[in-house]
Amino acid sequence: MSTIDKVTAPAVSERGRRMPASPIRKLTPFADAAKARGTRVYHLNIGQPDIETPAVMLRRIHDLQEKILEYTPSGGTPEYLESMRKYYAGVGIDIDLANIMATTGGSEAILFSMLACASSGDEAIVVEPFYTNYRTFAEMAGIRLVPITSRGEDGFHLPAREHWERIITPRTKLVVICNPGNPTGTVYSREELTMVARLCRDKGLFLVSDEVYREFVYDGRQAISALSLKGFEEQVIVIDSLSKRYSACGIRLGCLVTRNAEVYDACMRMAQGRLSAPGLAQIAAAAATELGPEYHQQVVTEYQHRRDLLFEELQKIPGVFLRKPEGAFYFIARLPVRDSEDFARWLLQHFELDGATVMVAPAPGFYATEGLGHNEVRIAYVLNQDDLRAAVRILAAALDRYCSDRELRTVDRPAPDAQESPDFHIPPES
Amino acid sequence: MSTIDKVTAPAVSERGRRMPASPIRKLTPFADAAKARGTRVYHLNIGQPDIETPAVMLRRIHDLQEKILEYTPSGGTPEYLESMRKYYAGVGIDIDLANIMATTGGSEAILFSMLACASSGDEAIVVEPFYTNYRTFAEMAGIRLVPITSRGEDGFHLPAREHWERIITPRTKLVVICNPGNPTGTVYSREELTMVARLCRDKGLFLVSDEVYREFVYDGRQAISALSLKGFEEQVIVIDSLSKRYSACGIRLGCLVTRNAEVYDACMRMAQGRLSAPGLAQIAAAAATELGPEYHQQVVTEYQHRRDLLFEELQKIPGVFLRKPEGAFYFIARLPVRDSEDFARWLLQHFELDGATVMVAPAPGFYATEGLGHNEVRIAYVLNQDDLRAAVRILAAALDRYCSDRELRTVDRPAPDAQESPDFHIPPES
Repeated sequence: MSTIDKVTAPAVSERGRRMPASPIRKLTPFADAAKARGTRVYHLNIGQPDIETPAVMLRRIHDLQEKILEYTPSGGTPEYLESMRKYYAGVGIDIDLANIMATTGGSEAILFSMLACASSGDEAIVVEPFYTNYRTFAEMAGIRLVPITSRGEDGFHLPAREHWERIITPRTKLVVICNPGNPTGTVYSREELTMVARLCRDKGLFLVSDEVYREFVYDGRQAISALSLKGFEEQVIVIDSLSKRYSACGIRLGCLVTRNAEVYDACMRMAQGRLSAPGLAQIAAAAATELGPEYHQQVVTEYQHRRDLLFEELQKIPGVFLRKPEGAFYFIARLPVRDSEDFARWLLQHFELDGATVMVAPAPGFYATEGLGHNEVRIAYVLNQDDLRAAVRILAAALDRYCSDRELRTVDRPAPDAQESPDFHIPPES
Repeated sequence: MSTIDKVTAPAVSERGRRMPASPIRKLTPFADAAKARGTRVYHLNIGQPDIETPAVMLRRIHDLQEKILEYTPSGGTPEYLESMRKYYAGVGIDIDLANIMATTGGSEAILFSMLACASSGDEAIVVEPFYTNYRTFAEMAGIRLVPITSRGEDGFHLPAREHWERIITPRTKLVVICNPGNPTGTVYSREELTMVARLCRDKGLFLVSDEVYREFVYDGRQAISALSLKGFEEQVIVIDSLSKRYSACGIRLGCLVTRNAEVYDACMRMAQGRLSAPGLAQIAAAAATELGPEYHQQVVTEYQHRRDLLFEELQKIPGVFLRKPEGAFYFIARLPVRDSEDFARWLLQHFELDGATVMVAPAPGFYATEGLGHNEVRIAYVLNQDDLRAAVRILAAALDRYCSDRELRTVDRPAPDAQESPDFHIPPES
């Protein structure tokens, strides 16, 4: 082959190669194979609620009047934006229409925020364990995620200010929090939120607050929105989504809310570039204003029962460490295993009980610090209580088998921390 | 104020500031104001067809069976992917399901492609005038768009290979073409496509081919997909969308098609990060397989009539230079004005004829080379023929008034090119 004819195969970009595979979804092929073998798989791995999408929203879709499914305004349809304004007023937050922008799920709002707050090579501080897909958006945006570690022993609440100050550099441009937390289930107090907001104000950083689980708080708690903090209007960008709130994950509709006009403007120019957020979703979403407060009361009561059941049952399993989540519908459980990804794969490939197995999300993908999360999994409680009970029974039997087979039980399990809170349940080793 | 209390307002990122405002949509406030005054605005500025979305697709929405609007698989629902596979088979292209990925409109496919092909600071060669939103995606991806200029006198066909070779640098990673072309209406021949594909293969570049107007070709032409070129499987990434094909712009559904497994894999990891493409859209889209070939025959015939009418009428206007587009539903018209953005704004702010005016897209936003396009506008023919006729009448009267008012007629109009094709209509100066 002459030099002229030489074929150079094009190479995927460095960031394309680094783009993380979803730890939630990368086990899917193993789950599919298990199902193909006839094994039932209980999905504790993904936040897909089994609650029906509200009938008023589905009805709006059935009754669709449009003959042409046209582009919608880049910032959102007037009806959708007004429904979100009303929603925020209902949770005690006054927001102008000009502060709300429709996005394709909360996902797009995260990407837009990162791009608007930081340039390529800049840094974002993120509280780990964090929603794993922040890694993907950070990679897309060329931003380095700098983790600040929260610990199960502290209920995954925020570390004190001095820990944050130590990791701030001239390249730090934003802080990303998730409240109520995925994957931790932690709900931040006004004091912790104010601490972070003040830090951001003092250091010239943006505070990106992912609040897509706002309604999912238990034991009478209230989630405090960063939008309700006075004096931080320039700092705060809130990520919101209808996915969990109305069990409508598939419609891909969320919003970005900020009173910072420059951020809004930069995000609007990105929104114009992609033309519109999904239109059918916006039509359905506008119907949500017809729902009364009893809708979420019922849903949240059901989730609280699920959380209680799962907490009760999981803490009976020897070697499992977990705390009672305050919100969202996940928690991080420490298991007596050395490699939670291996365990999750093994569950799908080699284990079943009465024809069923369980899928969990290995926790390393929720950490940016190498080496953390290898003995943890994220467990979602989006199944009905009978299924949850069955799933825990399987998990208990599986852990027993896995640990005896591999002689991994408690190996490498870190020694209990001297400062750990007495409120947390640490089951006895067996 | 003490140093400790000093408040540092956070600043939008450099790229956030650079993010271009849509030249198509940034005149919208002026159009809204005109409408508020009671002026009818004929929209020649945006590619929102007035053709109804196919009834079979709307019916699928009306008949929605789902009770929970769940996440769909990150790469697309099996039904949607199969419908796309069938669609491609119908246009003579064999594609495996594993080569097709659902995206949120063609827009997301462009962003994914850029991110997968190039890293921050890399370069993409793009044929100008180009679809203006490539600038937004390039800014998001941190990629520099390096333009290669196509000219109205050449029917906006591709420059010869030596022109491309001159602008390739070690940072060049991809070439982006749009075929049939927005905003030019140009349909590339197999020879020109093969020239670019060979160039990409020889130089180790990806070829990103935006083919969202594939059906919209006139006078018996056929659009040639880059997927149909043999021997370029590793180079080619096709951007596709249902927006124009089924007059369903608002559903935000498209796809990325590539036989390059590494590119597919990198894009899939991004797709996992954002979880799913819009679900209701995928349900509607799967119904498109029920449409026979007569659907597009009718639609394309209608667009061809519109193109012919608009071409006929526009070429009667003194000082207007344009060519007959071969495809898509746009063309670039050179007007006897010095600043097409000023003219477009003036149309909305200061002109009306019988209670109506016209909105056009100024062309500078479709060029990356500073100084090009200032005497051009993009005109879309997505209105019915009566409206198009009325719109041209307004445009003619407006140009007459604008040019006499401002004494700008023909000022700065470049001298006709010696090499221009005799096929192009250059109306006499009056």
